[in-house]
Amino acid sequence: MLDTNVQIFDTTLRDGEQVPGCKLNTEQKIIIAQQLDELGVDIIEAGFPVSSPGDFNSVYEISKIVKNATVCGLTRAVQNDIKVAAEALVKAKKPRIHTGIGTSESHIKYKFKTTPEEVIVRAQEAVRYAKSFVEDVEFYAEDAGRTENEYLARVCEAAIKAGATVLNIPDTTGYCLPSEYGAKIKYLRENVTGIHNVILSCHCHNDLGLATANSIEGVINGARQIECTINGIGERAGNTALEEVVMVLKQHPYLNFTTNIKNKLLYQTSQLVSSQMGMYPQPNKAIVGANAFAHSSGIHQDGVIKNRETYEIMDPKDVGVTESAIVLTARSGRAALAYKAKKVGYELTKLQLDIVYANFLNFADRHKDIKDNDIHQIIESSGLYKEILSA
Amino acid sequence: MLDTNVQIFDTTLRDGEQVPGCKLNTEQKIIIAQQLDELGVDIIEAGFPVSSPGDFNSVYEISKIVKNATVCGLTRAVQNDIKVAAEALVKAKKPRIHTGIGTSESHIKYKFKTTPEEVIVRAQEAVRYAKSFVEDVEFYAEDAGRTENEYLARVCEAAIKAGATVLNIPDTTGYCLPSEYGAKIKYLRENVTGIHNVILSCHCHNDLGLATANSIEGVINGARQIECTINGIGERAGNTALEEVVMVLKQHPYLNFTTNIKNKLLYQTSQLVSSQMGMYPQPNKAIVGANAFAHSSGIHQDGVIKNRETYEIMDPKDVGVTESAIVLTARSGRAALAYKAKKVGYELTKLQLDIVYANFLNFADRHKDIKDNDIHQIIESSGLYKEILSA
Repeated sequence: MLDTNVQIFDTTLRDGEQVPGCKLNTEQKIIIAQQLDELGVDIIEAGFPVSSPGDFNSVYEISKIVKNATVCGLTRAVQNDIKVAAEALVKAKKPRIHTGIGTSESHIKYKFKTTPEEVIVRAQEAVRYAKSFVEDVEFYAEDAGRTENEYLARVCEAAIKAGATVLNIPDTTGYCLPSEYGAKIKYLRENVTGIHNVILSCHCHNDLGLATANSIEGVINGARQIECTINGIGERAGNTALEEVVMVLKQHPYLNFTTNIKNKLLYQTSQLVSSQMGMYPQPNKAIVGANAFAHSSGIHQDGVIKNRETYEIMDPKDVGVTESAIVLTARSGRAALAYKAKKVGYELTKLQLDIVYANFLNFADRHKDIKDNDIHQIIESSGLYKEILSA
Repeated sequence: MLDTNVQIFDTTLRDGEQVPGCKLNTEQKIIIAQQLDELGVDIIEAGFPVSSPGDFNSVYEISKIVKNATVCGLTRAVQNDIKVAAEALVKAKKPRIHTGIGTSESHIKYKFKTTPEEVIVRAQEAVRYAKSFVEDVEFYAEDAGRTENEYLARVCEAAIKAGATVLNIPDTTGYCLPSEYGAKIKYLRENVTGIHNVILSCHCHNDLGLATANSIEGVINGARQIECTINGIGERAGNTALEEVVMVLKQHPYLNFTTNIKNKLLYQTSQLVSSQMGMYPQPNKAIVGANAFAHSSGIHQDGVIKNRETYEIMDPKDVGVTESAIVLTARSGRAALAYKAKKVGYELTKLQLDIVYANFLNFADRHKDIKDNDIHQIIESSGLYKEILSA
């Protein structure tokens, strides 16, 4: 019988950090790791230790300070990668090594220039070697989304025999449809000897906008771990967004799944990651965007005033969004400013917003945060006060 | 036998424009409508004519200039709304009136304070009245996502009897799972008399990150129209992103669906809408984000250099992204700058990026666009040239 609890594996600090211009230093990674631990994620993938001395050091330091979560380090199916990861994880209370190899035709032929049989041998050797350092070994079959199911099942079986505790089935290129990805997980549940002793994990990418749906479909079909990042950041179009999958599971109680995430910390975690990386989600980002709970049209406002649930399926407070949680800073966009201005009584046209925004940035650069009262002053200093009020 | 062509109904100018601070004037709306017509969308929802004289005027002017697409105006199930919409659409080659009413318990009880039977009567009257002005009448059952299927089928049947040509099944609050939404469309296909003479339409919202998956599941189950917006903009967490559903259908040819969209114009259309609204998609937005086709990790770069398809399921050129298509402006974010800087040889740390970004904004404010060569100058003027090169 499958557990109803879904493990949340956060890879903000590994896959998420692979965004141009969002490199974090060790100190920043520790701050985020502490927040993730507080948020209740089950596994923190802290980095790829062999990739650089800085990354090694981050994994080492994070291992020391994380109290509850498993700390995980990524490796290729390469002995030295695994040895270095084990060293970086030595201080972790619950260490996990995440090793694996590409299994799709494209990866086997063009990237490794080898054969399917040789890939199985390398996979087994990697898991066995990792197992000599730690009990908890996760195996990834890179590009599993484009790997033929029968061969993928053989790879999985080999990894289980070698001692893997978790099998990660990544849709590396973000290609699968939800029905395809779900069917893949179902196939593995039904055709891999020993599958009932390990956890199947979903690792989806958002190239076609389907990462959240694919992960949920994976869980419905028997996966019990989701790999995801705060704000859905990551390589290309990013990874599955942690806040989305957690809230999908929470808002559909009849599915009968739980997670250990403290959902009221979602917004604050999103803001922390954004500010540390200097990259904010778009205003219409689900759950954590500045407009995610903003009603602007008259029809909707009318509905919400009569009864919140007419247009809201979530209470913003459930994800930690309160009036005061939307804070304007010099990094806020036009949409957030317009939203706040509206809250204190100004309906700005695009042109007015351009002018006020310039003043706002000027003001924001000189102040740590912007209070509702400051907005009046900013609008007055823009010389548009009378024009806006008379509109 | 169902057609394999899926109609693309763009509502960027109606539902999309309901974003705080993104109001467009008539001139801007015309520019966008022309681009949408060029892009090949089948229907342009140009506005909600009764809502304001400005919106009326926009629909009127757009009706005059659109060459190929159907032009559509939104109304409530209210006589005056419908009359005003018909007037606004009078110059359209192919006019459509989009009328409807809330059908979920929450809407009937709290918003309309009426009964399910009365809602059916109002729905029929609205469709009949719209039909007295135009042949093409689309009916929406607002909050259909939370409407019980049996009652929804009765509403749909009534709308068909009154003359509706298209039935829109909106998941207004973005609540449905793909399997639920697909099952709803399937139920209607199987249980509504006359359904084979009309087109079923998906209108999904992204509150839980599932809008794209829900729309595709709707089409797989018999819908033949998708309502969507450029960049997925719209109320709260936004609508289904046009670029995502179009590319999902294109990249999965075995599903055997086609659209009339010229996919090579997707990126340019996204940029036009962003610049007119002053709101850009986040760097990791699928298909049109600045990083959507950016490979930053060593592993991925290595794979892509050996064979593009190792990590790319789409050729960026297919959506109109070429090297020169990613243009830096004063509105570009840190991520885009870091990406471009990397392209010309600089790997910036977060701290360096902060400093260079400030200089970049300064420079960008004084120049219309930024060339690759300008980046060298910006980095030199930041005083970090030696530090960055020696890293």
